[in-house]
Formats: sequence, structure tokens, C-alpha cells
Amino acid sequence: MGKRIGKQTVRLEHPVGILASASIAGQKEKDGPLGSDFDVIMADAEWNEETWEKTESKMQKEAVRLAIQKAGLALSDMHYIFAGDLLNQCIGAGFGLRELHIPYFGIYGACSTMIEGLSLASMLIDGGFADHAVAVTSSHFCTAERQYRMPLEYGGQRTPTAQWTVTGSGAAVLGKTVDVPHITHITTGKIMDMGVKDANNMGGAMAPAAFDTLLTHFQDTGLSPADYDLILTGDLGTVGRDVLIDLMQNEGFDITDNYNDGGCMIYDLDTQDVHAGGSGCGCIASVLCGHILPAMQRGEFRRILAIGTGALLSTTSGLQGESVPGIAHLVAISGKE
Amino acid sequence: MGKRIGKQTVRLEHPVGILASASIAGQKEKDGPLGSDFDVIMADAEWNEETWEKTESKMQKEAVRLAIQKAGLALSDMHYIFAGDLLNQCIGAGFGLRELHIPYFGIYGACSTMIEGLSLASMLIDGGFADHAVAVTSSHFCTAERQYRMPLEYGGQRTPTAQWTVTGSGAAVLGKTVDVPHITHITTGKIMDMGVKDANNMGGAMAPAAFDTLLTHFQDTGLSPADYDLILTGDLGTVGRDVLIDLMQNEGFDITDNYNDGGCMIYDLDTQDVHAGGSGCGCIASVLCGHILPAMQRGEFRRILAIGTGALLSTTSGLQGESVPGIAHLVAISGKE
Repeated sequence: MGKRIGKQTVRLEHPVGILASASIAGQKEKDGPLGSDFDVIMADAEWNEETWEKTESKMQKEAVRLAIQKAGLALSDMHYIFAGDLLNQCIGAGFGLRELHIPYFGIYGACSTMIEGLSLASMLIDGGFADHAVAVTSSHFCTAERQYRMPLEYGGQRTPTAQWTVTGSGAAVLGKTVDVPHITHITTGKIMDMGVKDANNMGGAMAPAAFDTLLTHFQDTGLSPADYDLILTGDLGTVGRDVLIDLMQNEGFDITDNYNDGGCMIYDLDTQDVHAGGSGCGCIASVLCGHILPAMQRGEFRRILAIGTGALLSTTSGLQGESVPGIAHLVAISGKE
Repeated sequence: MGKRIGKQTVRLEHPVGILASASIAGQKEKDGPLGSDFDVIMADAEWNEETWEKTESKMQKEAVRLAIQKAGLALSDMHYIFAGDLLNQCIGAGFGLRELHIPYFGIYGACSTMIEGLSLASMLIDGGFADHAVAVTSSHFCTAERQYRMPLEYGGQRTPTAQWTVTGSGAAVLGKTVDVPHITHITTGKIMDMGVKDANNMGGAMAPAAFDTLLTHFQDTGLSPADYDLILTGDLGTVGRDVLIDLMQNEGFDITDNYNDGGCMIYDLDTQDVHAGGSGCGCIASVLCGHILPAMQRGEFRRILAIGTGALLSTTSGLQGESVPGIAHLVAISGKE
């Protein structure tokens, strides 16, 4: 059973282990600095499906299957699955997971979805409601681009602050053990809206939410940046990353030594023409599941914070002149004991 | 701390009370059989907002404020809010709740969203992660119609199996007491897809999911329809209701004595021209929060099952020739002790 500490944080009474994780990525992600870390690289954007939306559904399904297989478990061992994505009505998850027959909680936190899923899954396990649960999410450049922006054939210009939606998926299987990287604390974010109206600067729009959640975590726990080997956000990109560093500095927290952003890590920002970096639910999901968690398992990180940041806009809200509300959810993960 | 029973059910160790609920509805819902039960009736579809989407956001915000006020609590007493809706990227919740500053978990279960929120909120409270939490959802005829179907001005014909999206919102505040109607069991549904492709027959598409969850609940708990005063689904409408009755009958469970559907209750099906009944996230939310929970508080029902049923489609999935996956989540609620 968990214990509340401070305003928005819970400490799990029995830390919940991430038994296994799996990642799937596309060709552009293969060509980035983390390319060799992903379990599966899709040969093309379609992956033998008729539409990109069906491809994205398949990515979630296959990521879940692979993570469960790596954990040495069966689909029927999963008591709950938490899943969502950026597509209208979360059809990546709804259609992708229908064959798996796992009790399903659909979630929507935009690019914070993976961390939202890890938060809820680990609380249900610690609370005694489940032995195993799985969290998954995805994004696909082609589905996001045509839903949110322009037909790909149009070849629209991108602004310098724009981010590139990652084609990727990550899934993690959770259970009751600390012999693997395990979740110790959860800090759940509030919706923050500072009035940014530029849908091509989502890093800037989300940075205040990441700031609020990270600062609250330190205030709630009494911990500081030095207590962590890595503070990982996803996905603020270069613009939002710099805003977060500044905002934390103003509060007396220097995070420059051990902070990075999934959107800045997954691509070579100098050569891959992604402007401010990667984004999309699948960005932090694939970076965490493909790169960070295996590194923790190897002992390369002892304690990390993973902060998922989401922009809660839609095309309709933008057309109606609305600003871009942000949300950030945080989990603290410790290496195997 | 909860205890798993059977395949998909948990029994809460300490049942979680529904401290207060609030409901908001529109003019057509006011004219229905439950019209006098809703806390707030909006004078028109706009409710002083510039767009229907902003109206829907306001409905969620005001329903939450009112429910918390009725519970004698403050916004700052809420440790979590669970919310979602039918709009792309759940902007009803994202924009409606941004001023409330409550740690936010966005969820998407289509019309099962209210029961999904009650499920997760009550598990977090029973697990010791929260003292109070709130669940809310909404739907609005005008936002749903133009997003999913046609511009209202077009005046499209409706098929006999079509349902009418309820303009309504319901919010419920949960806490640690059994001196009010309280949640005792939770049965979480799997995604079920029987291949129905008619987006104008969502009751038929969702009925197999309701059947699977209800049957599983009885199998997991050893209980039967006679153990409940009311089995409430929302929203199968007349078509899905009749399918569910038949499917249960085939398994030896006669639910005809104590079964009803929120979509069949909220409108006068003979006079209000809604064809197969009401639908939308706000249907079971407003029926439960406005009509059923107050009746339980008055002692009119002793034990009920509330089953939220969602159709996990989007306009994109329909255009791509996909069928309509369904999901159904169940909570068992007992009257005050």
C-alpha cells in the first residue's frame, strides 16, 4: 500500500519492478544515436499494413507481445493493460490491443501517456489489485502529421521550434519484484496552461508543466537533482529543455549536470533535420523501454526520474483560438538491488 | 488493499464511498423522464460560451465544482481527478479542468469513461494512494454530431438503430466512508470486437462487451442477478439492451426483472424522436450521478451494478473499413450501511 508524501507524490510501500520492456522504431529512428537499442526496426512506414493507422496499432500489439515474452510471462498473466496514443479516440491502442484479451484501461495524456500508464499500473500492483500489468503507447510520424498538420504530400514548411513525431512504440511489464529496475515514487501532474498558443512550439508550452511536476517532486520528497543520475523528460525538445533548465535554475535547482530529454536524444539534431527534436507518445516510450531501462539493468544508472510531458490540445482547440495546456507525470526508478 | 477474485474482478478491502455527485444536462434531457433529477439544466446548447466545445469543457468544470461543494470539501482536498470525453484528444476534460489544479489522469473509454474513472479512483483510494478523488465525464450532442457525423445544419437522416448523444455531465467525489453509497467490487473489461461495422448501431457493437463483463462478474463473484436491485448499463439503447438480455439468457441468467439501460431511461423513447435511445459519455454519467446515486442515498436501491459501455471507434477507423471494438467496465455499488 502506498504512502502519500507531500502534495502530489506517493512512495510505493513495495517498489514495483519493471520486469521487461520492448521497443519498436522506424527507419529514421534507426539512423539516430539510439538506433541500435531498439528491439525491432520496421523496414518501412507501412510494416505490411494497408494504412499507417493500422501500422501504429500493430506496433502497440507487437511491443506488448515482445515485452511479455521477454518477461517470461503469458498474455493471460497480465491483470491490466494501460494504453493510449495521439490518434483521435486512441485507435492505436483500441484496435491494436483488441486481440490480446487483457483487461484494458484506456488513458490519454498525449506524450505523457507512457509515464501515466506506469504510474497507474504500479499503484494498482502495490495496492494489491494486480500481480502483473503492462503499459504501452506509440506514435507514428505519418499518422500524426496527417491528423494534426498537413497531408504528407503537401510538404509543408516546418518552423524552427517544431518537433518531429517519432515513429516508435514502447511497452513495459510490471510486477512485484525489486530485482530489476523498479518504480519507487510517483508524482502526478496538474494541467498547466501559461497561454502559449503556438502549436508549433509544444516544447515551450509543456515546459511549465514539467517544471511544476519536477519542482513539486523535490519539494514533496526533500530530494534534489544530485540524488539522481539522470533526469529524463520526454519530449520537450531543445526549446522546452532550455526553458525547463532556466525555470529550475530560478528556483535554485541546477539540473544541467544530469538532465536530458528523450526528444533531444533520439535523433542527431545536427544532421537529421528534425528542428527542435523528437516528440510523440512513442518518443519517451521507445527511449525509456529501448535505451534507458536496459542500461539500468546493466547498472549504468542507479536512480533516475522519468517525466512524461503532454500537450493536451487538438486541432479543434487550436482553430478556436485556444492555448496549449500541458501536463507532466513523473516516476522515480531505481536500479536493481 | 484490494483482493483479486476470479479472472477480472477485485473486491475492495475497504469499500470506497461516493461522497457526493453532481449532474448537468441540456433542454432535451430536461424534457425526459429524469429531467427533474439533474442539478443544473443549461438554458441552451451554448451556456454563454462561444463554441459548443467550450460549453462541454464548462460542463465538466461546473459538475466537478458542484460535486466537491456538495461533499463539503475543497478542490485542494482532491488528490486525483480522472476525466475524459469523446472529443478528439479529450479536450472537454483537458480544457475544462485546467483551472482546478487537481493532479490529473486523463482516461479514454468512450462511453465507459465514467465507470473507468470510478474504478481507478476507488482502487487508488483503497490502496492508500489518495484520501479523495473525483471522476467526471461529459458529452454534448452538438460537439459529437459535428465531430463524428455531419454538420448540424445538414440535417442528416438517422437510422432506426442510431442513438442520440446526451448533452450532459456527471461528476462523483470518492472518499473513505461507507456511510454513503459505496463501491464494493470492480470488474474491468477486455476489448471485444465481434465484427459489427455499422457505426449507426453502436448498441449492437457494444452489447458483447457488456455481456462479457457482466457474465465474468457473476462467474468471478458467484453472485447472480438476484443479488442486485438494479443492473444498469450505459449506453446500449434499445437495440443493445435486447441483445444483452438474449446473450445473458443463453448463459442461464435472466436479467429482465432488474435490468435497465441509461440510454433507454434518459429520454421518452415514444415521444422524443431519439430512435434507439441516448448515448455519449455524459449519458450514464448524468443518469448515475443525477438519478441513481441520490436514489441509493434515499434507500431506494440496496445494491446495484453500473456497467459503462464504450465503442472504441473513430471516424478514421470507420473510413478504413474497420469494425467497432467495444469495452465495458463494471462497478458494484452498495447503499449506505
